[in-house]
Amino acid sequence: MRTLLPIILLLLNTGIFAQHNDSLRVKQITDEVMRNATAYDNLNFLCKKIGARLSGSPQAQKAVEATAAMLRQAGADTVYLQPCMVPHWVRGEKEQGYIQWGSPEKFNLHLCALGNTSGTGSKGVRSTIVEISNFAQLDSLGKAGYIRGKIVFFNFPMNPTYIESFRAYGESGSSRTRGPSRAAKYGAVAAMVRSLASNPDDYPHTGTVVYNDSFPKIPAVAISTNDARWLSNQIAQKKPLTAFLRTTSAMLPDAPSFNVVGEIRGSEKPGEIITVGGHLDSWDLAEGAQDDGAGVVQSIEIIRALKALGIRPKRTIRAVLFMNEENGGKGAAKYLELAKANGEQHLFALESDAGGFSPRGFSLDMKDTQRSSLLRWKPLFYPYGVYDFDRGGSGSDVGPLKEVGAALAGLRPDSQRYFDIHHAATDTFESVSRRELHLGSAVMAALVWLVSEYGL
Amino acid sequence: MRTLLPIILLLLNTGIFAQHNDSLRVKQITDEVMRNATAYDNLNFLCKKIGARLSGSPQAQKAVEATAAMLRQAGADTVYLQPCMVPHWVRGEKEQGYIQWGSPEKFNLHLCALGNTSGTGSKGVRSTIVEISNFAQLDSLGKAGYIRGKIVFFNFPMNPTYIESFRAYGESGSSRTRGPSRAAKYGAVAAMVRSLASNPDDYPHTGTVVYNDSFPKIPAVAISTNDARWLSNQIAQKKPLTAFLRTTSAMLPDAPSFNVVGEIRGSEKPGEIITVGGHLDSWDLAEGAQDDGAGVVQSIEIIRALKALGIRPKRTIRAVLFMNEENGGKGAAKYLELAKANGEQHLFALESDAGGFSPRGFSLDMKDTQRSSLLRWKPLFYPYGVYDFDRGGSGSDVGPLKEVGAALAGLRPDSQRYFDIHHAATDTFESVSRRELHLGSAVMAALVWLVSEYGL
Repeated sequence: MRTLLPIILLLLNTGIFAQHNDSLRVKQITDEVMRNATAYDNLNFLCKKIGARLSGSPQAQKAVEATAAMLRQAGADTVYLQPCMVPHWVRGEKEQGYIQWGSPEKFNLHLCALGNTSGTGSKGVRSTIVEISNFAQLDSLGKAGYIRGKIVFFNFPMNPTYIESFRAYGESGSSRTRGPSRAAKYGAVAAMVRSLASNPDDYPHTGTVVYNDSFPKIPAVAISTNDARWLSNQIAQKKPLTAFLRTTSAMLPDAPSFNVVGEIRGSEKPGEIITVGGHLDSWDLAEGAQDDGAGVVQSIEIIRALKALGIRPKRTIRAVLFMNEENGGKGAAKYLELAKANGEQHLFALESDAGGFSPRGFSLDMKDTQRSSLLRWKPLFYPYGVYDFDRGGSGSDVGPLKEVGAALAGLRPDSQRYFDIHHAATDTFESVSRRELHLGSAVMAALVWLVSEYGL
Repeated sequence: MRTLLPIILLLLNTGIFAQHNDSLRVKQITDEVMRNATAYDNLNFLCKKIGARLSGSPQAQKAVEATAAMLRQAGADTVYLQPCMVPHWVRGEKEQGYIQWGSPEKFNLHLCALGNTSGTGSKGVRSTIVEISNFAQLDSLGKAGYIRGKIVFFNFPMNPTYIESFRAYGESGSSRTRGPSRAAKYGAVAAMVRSLASNPDDYPHTGTVVYNDSFPKIPAVAISTNDARWLSNQIAQKKPLTAFLRTTSAMLPDAPSFNVVGEIRGSEKPGEIITVGGHLDSWDLAEGAQDDGAGVVQSIEIIRALKALGIRPKRTIRAVLFMNEENGGKGAAKYLELAKANGEQHLFALESDAGGFSPRGFSLDMKDTQRSSLLRWKPLFYPYGVYDFDRGGSGSDVGPLKEVGAALAGLRPDSQRYFDIHHAATDTFESVSRRELHLGSAVMAALVWLVSEYGL
């Protein structure tokens, strides 16, 4: 046994030495981002000069052009667009809605039409309200005939005791995505959904409804969490309540749009592709700063920082700014389609679509062997407060790349503030911290560089 | 050996069983806080109904009365005040300051008098500017006679590559605390200090100057980081710059004030005291939301949550809202003085004075045996994203309790945003996230309960 000792020591030393060099390189990359990042200024441009960027809108097109310019400015070797057709939903006129209780008195609601929904028609709809707290209750009332002709009020609060707020969003989210069609199945005339939001305030939060084609596409709105609480209290007092809702939202024919791609060609294995991205489109109510201007500018910053440092990655690194994450996923579908058509080899894909908050970790969706390989680098991230490398989803834009064998990861920032502002008018540039945004980009750059250097 | 196995297994089981029960209790406490905390509403009151609470001001007195009422409302067994005398500094009239370069043209500065400083007199001071980047440079220029009669511009930017922003504050902080007297030593007539801030903006950040009595107490102001960058660029272009500064700040005679204390009496060892606190006073420019309204309402919340759950801690838990942390530390000194005079036995003290951001850990300042004892509970905090239990300072209010043998700890929240707003007009209620504030309070409550249950 004793004869093996020097060899073991040698191996250990080599490993430690490599880790030491990697930690220096990681520090060089993160220092560059923390000192010189342009991500925050780019985000300011996206939010304040362009604004809301719903798929199919003129602003979405402006964002395509502006971010292509940013990628060129960042020094990408090549910048190009991937054409794709996207759903083109429009909100129409300012929504109206109120509650009445048998007198001329009205309680005006803070509301907005939900994404991809049909409008009420110009005369609006009026009916009595049924409050629903879970789908079993809906099914039971529906089968007994109590839902027919009613406006269903889905009141599924986000659970405040879940520390990871995405878990609460996942649990309550079906009230918005599936609720309207499930209510339509029992003859409801409209749906009113408590905003999927973590704080009590007056802002309605929009988001996609997924209609089930088997049932009428009834109109659906979100109301603010304060209004939902008020309404639930009124209902508990057995008041004979009616609601009036008027929305003129509509789905127009699909519109042409683009993904924006900027890449640094790998110096040794250019055929092995690493994708890092976020989504360009946002809801129409918001500047889309945290969702997902942050992911867009963080991805561009990775290109800028590596180029500024003169780092030549061994594998190809591609920043991809996906179109239409919010209400269709057509950009992601196009990216996958082209990857397959071009026979591309996708090694790794990382998405940032959980906000530009302080990074806490990466969630990993990959084979165990790849995960083991990646976990060797965990200690390199501790100095940046990045500790969590649990299994979990990556994101809806890079997710489809599993089909072409890519190992997937998602940036996991601190999630406490995200659902205060997600899909609401409060998702503004001012909600973003410069240092938090840049630190997220810094650790993404480090991970992308490590994969480009060593593979998985 | 085999005979010991059952005993070992039994011990292991008991340990695991205890941890399991503790984790349930911890979850019960954190759930209560995340569901029902009043901390955010209390903070709203402190910030919006009272506002800035500089020691000696009428608002500081209002804060004493309001928080005593909050502690009674929270269900504290006893609530009392500890009288203490505090420095009473006043800012005086709105400060004036500008830069000129040989023409009538002026660049108006975003500036504020620094805390505890003397004013310039009503006529102001005017002189040429010397930029200083480090104290060695100051000493060298001072010894050569170049500082005499000048206005010294201390330009010590916070290092953006330090991930823990308090480290950057610590490194650059002496430009403000010690800079003015070190410049006065060489005959400077005033000091102009780059704000100790982590972001580029137009807000000056105040804070204490510590005069050295051996030298003249020259006036000193902070200028915004944007102005500091502009000024440094102008100086680099060798322009013949003069500055004019006018401040009428002054130190008045000491004023009477109070610490506010609310406690739950221990059921088994009431003589063993656990202190948890923050500071009531704030700078006059800010609402003092993150610094340190957050620590105040988090401490009150611990009392509320334990009482709401009917938990009877074995040891006495005391929420202490210290007066005068910002510019004198007289509240902390009084608390120590009374602890000694009353022969109190102080087991543990925890401070929250780093903002109400997402908690990342606790820094520990205690004996190794106590630290080992506390580290057994580390895994109980992982579900709340609290991982760091490094050695480090606690806070300036509980720090003095080391003298009476207390083990000390400080809440360590995420530090990325703190120095964007610290001591500036931007430290408002709106900068605080409800969930982040409550999560900090939740993990503080858990730690305080564990110490009250098991000691250290």
